[in-house]
Amino acid sequence: MQPRIRIIGSGMSQPDTIMTSDEMDARLGLKVGTISGISGVQQRHVSIHETAASLAADACRKALASSGLDWENIDCLVSTGATMDQALPYNAALIHAELGLNRQRTTTFDVGASCMSFLTGLDVMSHLVENGRYQNVMLVSADIATFGLNWKELRECGNFGDGAAAVVIRKSLPGEVSLIKASRSHTLSKGVRYCEIPGGGTRFHPERINTPFAPLAKFSMDGKAVFKLVSGELPTFTADLLQQAGVTLAHISTVIPHQASRLALSHMAKRLEIPASKLVDIFARFGNQVGASLPTALHHAISSGQLQRGDDALLIGTGAGVTIGGMVLTY
Amino acid sequence: MQPRIRIIGSGMSQPDTIMTSDEMDARLGLKVGTISGISGVQQRHVSIHETAASLAADACRKALASSGLDWENIDCLVSTGATMDQALPYNAALIHAELGLNRQRTTTFDVGASCMSFLTGLDVMSHLVENGRYQNVMLVSADIATFGLNWKELRECGNFGDGAAAVVIRKSLPGEVSLIKASRSHTLSKGVRYCEIPGGGTRFHPERINTPFAPLAKFSMDGKAVFKLVSGELPTFTADLLQQAGVTLAHISTVIPHQASRLALSHMAKRLEIPASKLVDIFARFGNQVGASLPTALHHAISSGQLQRGDDALLIGTGAGVTIGGMVLTY
Repeated sequence: MQPRIRIIGSGMSQPDTIMTSDEMDARLGLKVGTISGISGVQQRHVSIHETAASLAADACRKALASSGLDWENIDCLVSTGATMDQALPYNAALIHAELGLNRQRTTTFDVGASCMSFLTGLDVMSHLVENGRYQNVMLVSADIATFGLNWKELRECGNFGDGAAAVVIRKSLPGEVSLIKASRSHTLSKGVRYCEIPGGGTRFHPERINTPFAPLAKFSMDGKAVFKLVSGELPTFTADLLQQAGVTLAHISTVIPHQASRLALSHMAKRLEIPASKLVDIFARFGNQVGASLPTALHHAISSGQLQRGDDALLIGTGAGVTIGGMVLTY
Repeated sequence: MQPRIRIIGSGMSQPDTIMTSDEMDARLGLKVGTISGISGVQQRHVSIHETAASLAADACRKALASSGLDWENIDCLVSTGATMDQALPYNAALIHAELGLNRQRTTTFDVGASCMSFLTGLDVMSHLVENGRYQNVMLVSADIATFGLNWKELRECGNFGDGAAAVVIRKSLPGEVSLIKASRSHTLSKGVRYCEIPGGGTRFHPERINTPFAPLAKFSMDGKAVFKLVSGELPTFTADLLQQAGVTLAHISTVIPHQASRLALSHMAKRLEIPASKLVDIFARFGNQVGASLPTALHHAISSGQLQRGDDALLIGTGAGVTIGGMVLTY
């Protein structure tokens, strides 16, 4: 079944503060050009006063404005971030409160699959919209990565930035071609420890450990191991996805990948033989915004006009888990 | 639309260690009978060596065994806990790894709405199963509450326990009457701070605060405020749900509530005029197992024979957010 849903609005939000890679070099006592050379990121936004909920709310307001709808039309708000704003309650309730929607009887919940949360949420909600369970759904991803980084790990810390992006979907009207042609994901949990933040939940709760908590709240990643696990999988995964969608890569006008790293983007382009003109690459400007990265790239493709109505887009990426996910979407 | 899905297996798991309320009295220097008198809980299970993922995996194995399926038949594993095992990756990936399913190409993700996570996940996944997106879905809720409690707050700490429960669903076959007749939820985010654990995410990240982290990892609840917010809402909410399902309360054979507290259970029974014989009440034995509470009560109703094939069950509850949720399910 191919859910006939249409993205009718999108928006993004980043923290006010920009940190360039040259500024990072200065802060870390490195030669100018070191961080940008290693990471390929020129600048990223970093949160000072912003929370994941405030960034999400800002992205939602922009997506709503571009959809032409009012909040009373949105019957479901789904948070598709990779990380929690706080341990309890869940992100979507915090975003609902931040938006001041207490008088709206909105259904709210989170869909989580690390950096594949947005793709997973879009897949899931497409079926609920297709079936009439909800009329107009707001999906929003917001992540603040920069607090959790180990700034001594240059290969890692230069990669990330903070941000949020949101889309509004509804069922396609008669005559509209928008639909999801295929969607797939699976988890290679052999790599469950390759990317992680051990603390923050019940496993390493402060009451349960005899060591300081703060180091456990840091992100760590074995990039080489992820790359090895995923690179063999990617061509078959993509071929299966395209076959399920009934299209070839030549039919795809725009490839919208999760903006994981410079290496991941260039490797994907090379392995899948994607010309640069088809690839949405916002990495140098924003870095890897974790769960917000893929919807930000999607918003960029829509707002820049790179993705046109009727075009087929390939959305693809991997995230901590390790989970590989992809979708063919007729915009 | 009423998704024609059938629960074909269920299971539960609790930590090995039982703590009776009398033992809690002794530990806290109270007169025997104090904690059970305040909370109505006789005993609860508390995690020593267990993690949320290990409890979840145990519940999954039991649910799978009762379904008669093998892991290769399960194409989607959804974690519907209220709290995270760790900040990254998401719970379902950790559970997938704990189960040793690396060779299975399972789709995994989390659906989160605090204590309404299981109801939300069941609602969501019913549409994906109805549409053939997945064939056999494992939903599992696991929460470890006891580490996050403030043991000086007697009114609160006696209420909670740790546990996990899982169900397997598939599409109903021709001739099977199982379906979801109605499902509703909405968020009253005015109460977003009434139940919370502030720490654990990016809002109060250790790098962002100048105070100790440990107190922020504690659960706090303004029970009176939740009660006031929800009690006015409950009768209308339930009436709307039953009307949508096309049944009256007399048709409901079994009411399966979230086991929030003794007061919440007795208030619900009174306001909705539910006779004790219809109410699934496992509170004295397990306490409030957070997100695992409702599926544990559902498993209890199924395994005890209280819920029979063809019966209509009302699943209902509230959770941090504050989110009120309900479902009418023909088992």
